[in-house]
Amino acid sequence: MKIQGIHYRTIWPHADGTSVAIIDQTQLPHLFAIAKLSSIDQAAEAIRTMMVRGAPLIGATAAYGIAFAMRKDASDGALDAAHDSLLATRPTAVNLRWALTRMRDALRNSVRSDRADVAWAEAALICDEDVETCRKIGEHGLKIFREASAKKSKDPLNILTHCNAGWLACVDWGTALAPIYMAHDEGIALHVWVDETRPRNQGASLTAYELGGHGVPHTIIVDNAGGHFMRKGAVDLCIVGTDRVTVNGDVANKIGTYLKALAAKDNDIPFYVALPSSTIDWTLNSGDIIPIEERAGDEVTKMTGKLVDGTVVSVEISAPGSPAANPAFDVTPGTLVTGFITERGFCTANARGLRGLFPER
Amino acid sequence: MKIQGIHYRTIWPHADGTSVAIIDQTQLPHLFAIAKLSSIDQAAEAIRTMMVRGAPLIGATAAYGIAFAMRKDASDGALDAAHDSLLATRPTAVNLRWALTRMRDALRNSVRSDRADVAWAEAALICDEDVETCRKIGEHGLKIFREASAKKSKDPLNILTHCNAGWLACVDWGTALAPIYMAHDEGIALHVWVDETRPRNQGASLTAYELGGHGVPHTIIVDNAGGHFMRKGAVDLCIVGTDRVTVNGDVANKIGTYLKALAAKDNDIPFYVALPSSTIDWTLNSGDIIPIEERAGDEVTKMTGKLVDGTVVSVEISAPGSPAANPAFDVTPGTLVTGFITERGFCTANARGLRGLFPER
Repeated sequence: MKIQGIHYRTIWPHADGTSVAIIDQTQLPHLFAIAKLSSIDQAAEAIRTMMVRGAPLIGATAAYGIAFAMRKDASDGALDAAHDSLLATRPTAVNLRWALTRMRDALRNSVRSDRADVAWAEAALICDEDVETCRKIGEHGLKIFREASAKKSKDPLNILTHCNAGWLACVDWGTALAPIYMAHDEGIALHVWVDETRPRNQGASLTAYELGGHGVPHTIIVDNAGGHFMRKGAVDLCIVGTDRVTVNGDVANKIGTYLKALAAKDNDIPFYVALPSSTIDWTLNSGDIIPIEERAGDEVTKMTGKLVDGTVVSVEISAPGSPAANPAFDVTPGTLVTGFITERGFCTANARGLRGLFPER
Repeated sequence: MKIQGIHYRTIWPHADGTSVAIIDQTQLPHLFAIAKLSSIDQAAEAIRTMMVRGAPLIGATAAYGIAFAMRKDASDGALDAAHDSLLATRPTAVNLRWALTRMRDALRNSVRSDRADVAWAEAALICDEDVETCRKIGEHGLKIFREASAKKSKDPLNILTHCNAGWLACVDWGTALAPIYMAHDEGIALHVWVDETRPRNQGASLTAYELGGHGVPHTIIVDNAGGHFMRKGAVDLCIVGTDRVTVNGDVANKIGTYLKALAAKDNDIPFYVALPSSTIDWTLNSGDIIPIEERAGDEVTKMTGKLVDGTVVSVEISAPGSPAANPAFDVTPGTLVTGFITERGFCTANARGLRGLFPER
């Protein structure tokens, strides 16, 4: 997507031929900064500190991490070590495991002397495929948006989203935001309620930034407010991304998603989850066993923001001495989800729906 | 309650005999500052800017506002004007209207020359009664806490609360926090999950401050996280305050309360609302017609916090140019509420329950 008229992906091969460039998302929305990664340690650190985040983008970055490792040491031992160290960076998003498994499988079938090149090409392919996958998710979602919009007489279609499942969470397009961009581009009147998404504020800082950049009408609200707007009839549909879907249709996504799904159910509002199939964990039968990442409490007790003079600072926002807990994700039961929008189309949020769309699994 | 060993109320007659002192709650938790109010305009401003907040304390402050007005001009016209201007400061909490009506009724029955003194005495009486009312709420709530605690084998009783319904929201004790203090004081092992309560962070800045000051174990969480902890079995009961209860049992309270009530229901966790009877609006039969205050969007897009050097600053935290909406309250249907804890005891959250406890209404 474009930033000030220039098309960017979130990750791309640097002109130097040996590193990749990323948008440092910890700096947004205050600063648009590009960072360079050229080692597996830098890739792991970028994932861990959320310079890159969003399940698909985490996977793509990890793929390049493997490529960096292979350039240094293309042995089986180095490959396994790279795989394991990258896998440990963040526990919840399964796309990370998916991308690492794919890289390892591709490299094990290559001779050692080719591995650096094969890894680089495979990582690039993962990125290109992610763009195409998100484009397809957008097109399938667009059909749903068209139908929902057709039911509206005058007001724009009001959509609520949580966290950031836009192009910044992927390589381009996004998952939940892809149909929003496509609907907006074809002239469907819409407005997006953007949950700010504490504690890291990916909604207020990334989703609002993306939507504003593309000219999509939107309003930031605190995470507390979505239920109120649903009760007032101001939300027509909800759409979010996900970090892991289990075979029974349960959805791990950014903390707070479950609360919005409950409110949507209570108000008969469709609640869609948009995902590439790499987000489906075919090995788990229930969301209750998804590992939930616990992050540092100071993400809750401190906040980064911009002073009037433009300086970006961190401030303490809570009672000194009070501890904080910070689970990064929650699990929404599939029973609260209207359906999944994938690159193959729509399906219901349960085993039958998933197996119907992905019969080969 | 005590702050560093000294007992405070949130509002008290100043030693000068003509003004009242308040704790300026906009400065907490970074600074404990006492402010002086000596005119109706100052009282109105203190309510509007949330130097004082919490339904019972708003009522008490408004009562003193009337007293200030009577000292200047004790005419019927001045009384009506004072009543109306204070009523307009905040629309949702009905305790404001309750206190103003009570003051006006008391003063209309007094001769003009007595009105300044009568008003001062009546405002003081409202404060004293609020303390006693909250103490009774605490005792009735304590019985519920004792029973809930008796069911626990080993772990502490885990309580979740939203916003601040502690002594800082009242004159002393608090509503939702009163039973917590009493249970803690009699040795019941408990732990409180404190919702930070965006956008004004009354949980992280006031509830955590109160609980920490009293030595009650607690953990701050983002508003998004409560549903996750409920699903994980880490919450035994929820208790919150309210700004207005309607005859059918609907509850207006700080934005986000509804989402927690939905999650409590989904996980079979009791959800209690603690309130003085002055919070019941006997004129409304449904929460859907409670006026919901819309506050400025910059409460969402900006955040106040403390720099490492101790300076308190405001920072911009969201994408520049993105608008924000900021409804301050939401309505939780009585059907999601396990019951009300009032100064007269417990009742179910519906018309029969309320009329049973308050047959004179």
